[in-house]
Amino acid sequence: TVRDACLDHQRLLRTGIPEVIYGEAKSAEQIVTIARAMLDKKGPLLVTRVDSHKAMLIVEQLPQLTYHHQARLLTGPRTASGPPDVRGTILVICAGTSDIAIAEEARLTAEHLGNPVQAIYDAGVAGLHRLLAHQEKLRDASAIIVVAGMEGALPSVVGGLVSCPVIGVPTSVGYGTGAGGFAALLGMLNSCAPGLAVVNIDNGFGAGCLAAAINRNR
Amino acid sequence: TVRDACLDHQRLLRTGIPEVIYGEAKSAEQIVTIARAMLDKKGPLLVTRVDSHKAMLIVEQLPQLTYHHQARLLTGPRTASGPPDVRGTILVICAGTSDIAIAEEARLTAEHLGNPVQAIYDAGVAGLHRLLAHQEKLRDASAIIVVAGMEGALPSVVGGLVSCPVIGVPTSVGYGTGAGGFAALLGMLNSCAPGLAVVNIDNGFGAGCLAAAINRNR
Amino acid sequence: TVRDACLDHQRLLRTGIPEVIYGEAKSAEQIVTIARAMLDKKGPLLVTRVDSHKAMLIVEQLPQLTYHHQARLLTGPRTASGPPDVRGTILVICAGTSDIAIAEEARLTAEHLGNPVQAIYDAGVAGLHRLLAHQEKLRDASAIIVVAGMEGALPSVVGGLVSCPVIGVPTSVGYGTGAGGFAALLGMLNSCAPGLAVVNIDNGFGAGCLAAAINRNR
Amino acid sequence: TVRDACLDHQRLLRTGIPEVIYGEAKSAEQIVTIARAMLDKKGPLLVTRVDSHKAMLIVEQLPQLTYHHQARLLTGPRTASGPPDVRGTILVICAGTSDIAIAEEARLTAEHLGNPVQAIYDAGVAGLHRLLAHQEKLRDASAIIVVAGMEGALPSVVGGLVSCPVIGVPTSVGYGTGAGGFAALLGMLNSCAPGLAVVNIDNGFGAGCLAAAINRNR
Amino acid sequence: TVRDACLDHQRLLRTGIPEVIYGEAKSAEQIVTIARAMLDKKGPLLVTRVDSHKAMLIVEQLPQLTYHHQARLLTGPRTASGPPDVRGTILVICAGTSDIAIAEEARLTAEHLGNPVQAIYDAGVAGLHRLLAHQEKLRDASAIIVVAGMEGALPSVVGGLVSCPVIGVPTSVGYGTGAGGFAALLGMLNSCAPGLAVVNIDNGFGAGCLAAAINRNR
Amino acid sequence: TVRDACLDHQRLLRTGIPEVIYGEAKSAEQIVTIARAMLDKKGPLLVTRVDSHKAMLIVEQLPQLTYHHQARLLTGPRTASGPPDVRGTILVICAGTSDIAIAEEARLTAEHLGNPVQAIYDAGVAGLHRLLAHQEKLRDASAIIVVAGMEGALPSVVGGLVSCPVIGVPTSVGYGTGAGGFAALLGMLNSCAPGLAVVNIDNGFGAGCLAAAINRNR
Amino acid sequence: TVRDACLDHQRLLRTGIPEVIYGEAKSAEQIVTIARAMLDKKGPLLVTRVDSHKAMLIVEQLPQLTYHHQARLLTGPRTASGPPDVRGTILVICAGTSDIAIAEEARLTAEHLGNPVQAIYDAGVAGLHRLLAHQEKLRDASAIIVVAGMEGALPSVVGGLVSCPVIGVPTSVGYGTGAGGFAALLGMLNSCAPGLAVVNIDNGFGAGCLAAAINRNR
Amino acid sequence: TVRDACLDHQRLLRTGIPEVIYGEAKSAEQIVTIARAMLDKKGPLLVTRVDSHKAMLIVEQLPQLTYHHQARLLTGPRTASGPPDVRGTILVICAGTSDIAIAEEARLTAEHLGNPVQAIYDAGVAGLHRLLAHQEKLRDASAIIVVAGMEGALPSVVGGLVSCPVIGVPTSVGYGTGAGGFAALLGMLNSCAPGLAVVNIDNGFGAGCLAAAINRNR
Ligand SMILES: Nc1ncnc2c1ncn2[C@@H]1O[C@H](COP(=O)(O)O)[C@@H](O)[C@H]1O
Ligand SMILES: Nc1ncnc2c1ncn2[C@@H]1O[C@H](COP(=O)(O)O)[C@@H](O)[C@H]1O
Ligand SMILES: Nc1ncnc2c1ncn2[C@@H]1O[C@H](COP(=O)(O)O)[C@@H](O)[C@H]1O
Ligand SMILES: Nc1ncnc2c1ncn2[C@@H]1O[C@H](COP(=O)(O)O)[C@@H](O)[C@H]1O
Ligand SMILES: [Mg+2]
Ligand SMILES: [Mg+2]
Ligand SMILES: [Mg+2]
Ligand SMILES: [Mg+2]
Ligand SMILES: [Mg+2]
Ligand SMILES: [Mg+2]
Ligand SMILES: [Mg+2]
Ligand SMILES: [Mg+2]
Repeated sequence: TVRDACLDHQRLLRTGIPEVIYGEAKSAEQIVTIARAMLDKKGPLLVTRVDSHKAMLIVEQLPQLTYHHQARLLTGPRTASGPPDVRGTILVICAGTSDIAIAEEARLTAEHLGNPVQAIYDAGVAGLHRLLAHQEKLRDASAIIVVAGMEGALPSVVGGLVSCPVIGVPTSVGYGTGAGGFAALLGMLNSCAPGLAVVNIDNGFGAGCLAAAINRNR
Repeated sequence: TVRDACLDHQRLLRTGIPEVIYGEAKSAEQIVTIARAMLDKKGPLLVTRVDSHKAMLIVEQLPQLTYHHQARLLTGPRTASGPPDVRGTILVICAGTSDIAIAEEARLTAEHLGNPVQAIYDAGVAGLHRLLAHQEKLRDASAIIVVAGMEGALPSVVGGLVSCPVIGVPTSVGYGTGAGGFAALLGMLNSCAPGLAVVNIDNGFGAGCLAAAINRNR
Repeated sequence: TVRDACLDHQRLLRTGIPEVIYGEAKSAEQIVTIARAMLDKKGPLLVTRVDSHKAMLIVEQLPQLTYHHQARLLTGPRTASGPPDVRGTILVICAGTSDIAIAEEARLTAEHLGNPVQAIYDAGVAGLHRLLAHQEKLRDASAIIVVAGMEGALPSVVGGLVSCPVIGVPTSVGYGTGAGGFAALLGMLNSCAPGLAVVNIDNGFGAGCLAAAINRNR
Repeated sequence: TVRDACLDHQRLLRTGIPEVIYGEAKSAEQIVTIARAMLDKKGPLLVTRVDSHKAMLIVEQLPQLTYHHQARLLTGPRTASGPPDVRGTILVICAGTSDIAIAEEARLTAEHLGNPVQAIYDAGVAGLHRLLAHQEKLRDASAIIVVAGMEGALPSVVGGLVSCPVIGVPTSVGYGTGAGGFAALLGMLNSCAPGLAVVNIDNGFGAGCLAAAINRNR
Repeated sequence: TVRDACLDHQRLLRTGIPEVIYGEAKSAEQIVTIARAMLDKKGPLLVTRVDSHKAMLIVEQLPQLTYHHQARLLTGPRTASGPPDVRGTILVICAGTSDIAIAEEARLTAEHLGNPVQAIYDAGVAGLHRLLAHQEKLRDASAIIVVAGMEGALPSVVGGLVSCPVIGVPTSVGYGTGAGGFAALLGMLNSCAPGLAVVNIDNGFGAGCLAAAINRNR
Repeated sequence: TVRDACLDHQRLLRTGIPEVIYGEAKSAEQIVTIARAMLDKKGPLLVTRVDSHKAMLIVEQLPQLTYHHQARLLTGPRTASGPPDVRGTILVICAGTSDIAIAEEARLTAEHLGNPVQAIYDAGVAGLHRLLAHQEKLRDASAIIVVAGMEGALPSVVGGLVSCPVIGVPTSVGYGTGAGGFAALLGMLNSCAPGLAVVNIDNGFGAGCLAAAINRNR
Repeated sequence: TVRDACLDHQRLLRTGIPEVIYGEAKSAEQIVTIARAMLDKKGPLLVTRVDSHKAMLIVEQLPQLTYHHQARLLTGPRTASGPPDVRGTILVICAGTSDIAIAEEARLTAEHLGNPVQAIYDAGVAGLHRLLAHQEKLRDASAIIVVAGMEGALPSVVGGLVSCPVIGVPTSVGYGTGAGGFAALLGMLNSCAPGLAVVNIDNGFGAGCLAAAINRNR
Repeated sequence: TVRDACLDHQRLLRTGIPEVIYGEAKSAEQIVTIARAMLDKKGPLLVTRVDSHKAMLIVEQLPQLTYHHQARLLTGPRTASGPPDVRGTILVICAGTSDIAIAEEARLTAEHLGNPVQAIYDAGVAGLHRLLAHQEKLRDASAIIVVAGMEGALPSVVGGLVSCPVIGVPTSVGYGTGAGGFAALLGMLNSCAPGLAVVNIDNGFGAGCLAAAINRNR
């Protein structure tokens, strides 16, 4: 019940990012109650890590929400306030087609926070020419999010090519010693490309927020 | 010998950060040879993770280098090129006095890359009023580096207060389950403050580079 | 069969806490047999970690038991013996709405052992003002249980505010490096708030028992 | 320098435990500066994890401090304020003679915070009669600290015998899979004695603080 | 198909223990084919880790096999050869009622290999009097198998009471840091009772074989 | 959609191994789209880690594909280009019948890449005579793949017998400390047989590719 | 001081193995005091894990003790009581010359407890003929201790050849993923030779005690 | 003593690689005795992981040995037997100057086993043009050894460029989560370049042996 949820409505003002609902460990009913309270305040709305069954139950009751299937995100209606003052375009790259779900979570989060976003998908290190074909996009971005599972080497390579901040998102795509995403995470934390920003495994949402903070004009 | 080192002189142009010498696993002699080659090219010079004994041997031969004892850094003379075009001031915060060495590595790296930097040291979560006394500095920063060992909670708290990008640096300060810095690293990767950027344990250098990339005006 | 279970009926006298049935790895049938034997002895009854399907099967046969859905607890009828002599009120705090299940397990355990309990739910470190609004409850408690997943920072913050014993309960709420609750556990074990008591991940039951032992008047 | 240390003088009032200096990662010089500032405020003084060489350098400059060799503690002069109002006696038990250093850290911390303390050393589970010979002390304690390395089973056994709160301190005594104290820590976190409080490996200081908080009369 | 399985029929002669079928990763069909080949050779037959559904499919085709539900074992008909020459009785103890499945696997394995076996179940360290009530059985055993999950302390306690070989079997009963049985395993490997034999987590079968080897008269 | 997949069609020319579809984290629909694009280019086709349900959906739409049940592989029609120029025969050995699935993945991959392959299954170290019976095959192989779970000792033993390159494939067959295949992996990485090549746990596909690269005549 | 050590003099009677001093974490002075108290009781004496410097200091004061350099053991004079009643000979095998120290600890412990012992050293799995040359010794042993580092495969091979109990001792010999002995430990716990007894890494002492318990005639 | 070492002189014939002395855990004296026995047999001689102090003591007594300082190898005189029949040239690449020690161990091992070897050092992924400048060497190699610490991404990149077998050697160069080389190892095991052969961390010797086995003409 809402009695249990104690919302932090000032967070948007303080940090530039609204309170966001972590959907994984909550029931559809809990999410509906919290979301309704937030919609009443007319704030922006984002619910993360919602599976499609739970999403269906929620959208039935709150039809103003949109479900993004691959990203497992629910977004509210765009709020009245105009677009934020941004520095440029955010670029989202992913290594394999299996990493697209997390890349989409990052892309939609950044977009929902008011940023122009571009994407290059399936361009892993085993065939680098695929990435090098996009030199212009790489050069123009104000922040780049690189999503990769398995050995997580792509952010290092991108970091060696550009001067804007690069954010690595390890994914849990893999098996054996790669299961869970720890190999990718360690690869990114120990990157020889100095200054790589790393977020938690599968945390496309966090990468989107970080890119938005970097892209914000103060 | 230099024969073994294949320097990447264009890196500064490509990424905004020059090739930096990782000093830990190299002999004084190896470092002198590589540093000399870089000084010849008149590029900026930084050598990381150099203990004081090795530093003494190096500075004897290359007196134009300066050793920073706490940060374990060797820096070359500031290069002719004027200061880069930056967005604002970088703030470095650390949780306990034991974390100062890594905070200094971050501070000096960012400064060496041409950024104005401010610092607030010894302001851990067990006495939050110490941090809250610096509201203005927090509000004015264009990027904040937060260095913390033990449970690594300080970046989460800072992240809940500001809207600029926050970079968490876990340190290996601690014992028992805290030894090595994994508790602090996990604390930061799982922060409930969305969008926290994390770097490797004790990687003050990386945090300084990332803050510089964020602060760069493109 | 009961032949297999060798109950420790004197435990209540010796330790102040009755033998409690660990329900997770037992069949409904096994639990019914053991519970019946304990009810015959007229002792207090508690069964932990019982899912709702198993609970239904048990309550069908033992209708005097009550099932607490969120806490996954089965409790027996309150026993004749008057309330124990206690020192004060136990306070249960949890960080996010996803941690409520474990907080409820702690709250009901402490209550079942005869203690007055109060609760503050959904008051994590990303919006500390929510917690600071309850200064009086914090000051009045004789023991505080703090339940938190993700980075597990809330107990450190509470521990920096009060002088009564604080018990941290890490939860398995989280994903990536947070999955399983190890990040929260490490955060609590390495707390910079000295003297934090820690229990196993998701062990609301243990926290309730510990708070009861602290609150007991000897 | 003190410029770097930002002391939290109100902590004693707020939490009942003064700011304590963590000595391990600090130089003798740093410790002297911080300690002097605290002695000027006439507060109680405790420095933990100080090796004997560092201690010698410090005591040379601050002869009013006392060094406790086994416990690796430096304590200041007992302060003027009378003894706190306590509930009873704290009991410290350790399993093997190798665990005495940590047991002494716990004992001296609790004593320094104004509590009467008793000790039973070298009474591990491989010869339980040694413990059972002290039934009276076990029964009379208001809190029991049990220090054990290797498999860390002693706190479970004590927890099955008494009704007061029991605090387990795992030690890093051991080798092979026991090195570092993780076996002992896991043993205590998974104790079948419900309600065991656990602290970090080798954290005798934390156990002393927790026992003091339990023993405090509010 | 049998074409894939290359049976080791001489193993019984060489090691005293017949080739045993590891059922977990095999289909019912694979098990039937291999078992049939072994029954043809008139050797003893044991299939481990078979769930009840798979067992049903197998027994339908090979009705001469018996399924032991708790132990998840399939046993063949006792073979003609008389009982082996044994030294005495094997004792199987388990700590909690949740550990009975593994204890039964050990008990039935030892029995199937021709040994007299006795059992004491649900006698964990939190109520040691339950174990001490069986002094005679403890003294008379020629080998004792002790099965325990959670902190796995029971084998240490038994090892401190008897002079015959003690075999510890850690079980995966537990949650949080206890999940998977690693806490129990580490507890047993670091036992302060010298000479404890340890087997893999949940390996009741291995413990039964080891006890049989110890109990064999050569 | 194919829009998301950016195929690397030149990979076959560059590395001798075509782009292969990693099927585990993809939907049947995604696989069909990518496979169709590759079939259009008339290249060889391989899809790994496809469960039987997904395979059925795919083969319905692309009947020219063949599903290999044990190996969980989908292969396309053999391409026109003649067989590659190879040095000899590849031998695949596996330790237990439970390891056959991964051995089959290795065998079919190597065969699909144009190599003659032989197999010896179920010949683990507990009965070495089963392996020694195949001396000739061992001597004649140009590369040997050894697949083993549990303690993973078989590759060490084979490595001590032959002079051709040996490739160890650890499998996740096992339980307790063996679950996930880490025991087998560590066993192989620390083999006392010098020069053993190791691949990821359950990576029969990688072993097949490596053996093919070794067997290729340049 | 002895005041701190509470000796368990009846342990020999109860368990057949005297209290043994764990020397690693004790000072020479502590060991002398405890050893003297035990010599006064005329019991057998064993001190484990004593480095050569500490041993020298101890033997200076207690010249009746003998130091065994490789095994790092101190033994007291053989006691008056006649040899125990044993079943046969214990065999100690080690895999490489680097494992000899731990093998010697096992050999001397078993010998000190009154058992005849034989040894085969440097007979690892990479050259099995070296082991097979000792068939008779293998057949005649009443218990075999197999000491091995790296991948720890030797106990599995021995276990496949004999019918007496086999005890595996993993050693910390190795580097990379083998450092610390975990690869060897996991290899032994997951041995496909059923019934292998495992002890802690580098625990030659425990293996000697276990072999003695098996070899004891009751 | 040699009495303890049981040499495996036939190993060269059987596996193509002579018995090699693992120097790390042996005394200078032990190594001299074993080496002398092998020199008497006129076989090839290699001692690995010998520090410079130990090497000095050995070479004093066996002046016919050569010490390779960076590689920490001792090699004997080249033996009379002509060069083996090889397929081509082995290429050794390393990522950073800190990885040169292990690269040299690999290079000298392969050379000592009779192979022509070439080397490209300091060509990590952060500046890929350094590697791409050597296309010809990459194309001509019959096997490539790639040595890399930190995130270990270089072997994946090389594997995407060539068709000969690629052997990845993770090094322990790194700190924080990179300490010990596990990040690099995981990176290589999870490489998206199919068919990468991996050896233990810092195992340049093993990589040299594997490359030699691949390069051998049968
Ligand atoms: N079973 C497998 N194990 C490891 N790598 C694989 C496997 N199957 C395909 N791959 C590789 O993984 C990449 C495919 O990634 P994706 O774009 O997600 O399909 C390709 O580079 C393949 O060579
Ligand atoms: N090397 C060893 N490995 C494992 N346990 C040991 C060892 N040496 C002695 N012990 C046991 O450790 C306990 C001694 O603990 P302490 O009181 O610290 O001397 C006794 O129960 C011994 O039987
Ligand atoms: N949720 C729980 N967490 C930890 N320990 C528990 C829990 N529930 C019951 N226990 C304890 O576990 C033991 C029960 O074991 P069993 O014989 O398997 O029922 C008792 O000593 C209980 O006090
Ligand atoms: N302290 C540091 N932490 C992480 N990376 C570093 C550090 N210092 C230098 N590096 C990077 O490591 C690489 C140097 O490797 P090396 O060739 O061994 O000197 C360069 O790409 C640097 O940017
Ligand atoms: Mg792809
Ligand atoms: Mg401080
Ligand atoms: Mg909330
Ligand atoms: Mg003792
Ligand atoms: Mg029970
Ligand atoms: Mg088999
Ligand atoms: Mg040898
Ligand atoms: Mg370099």
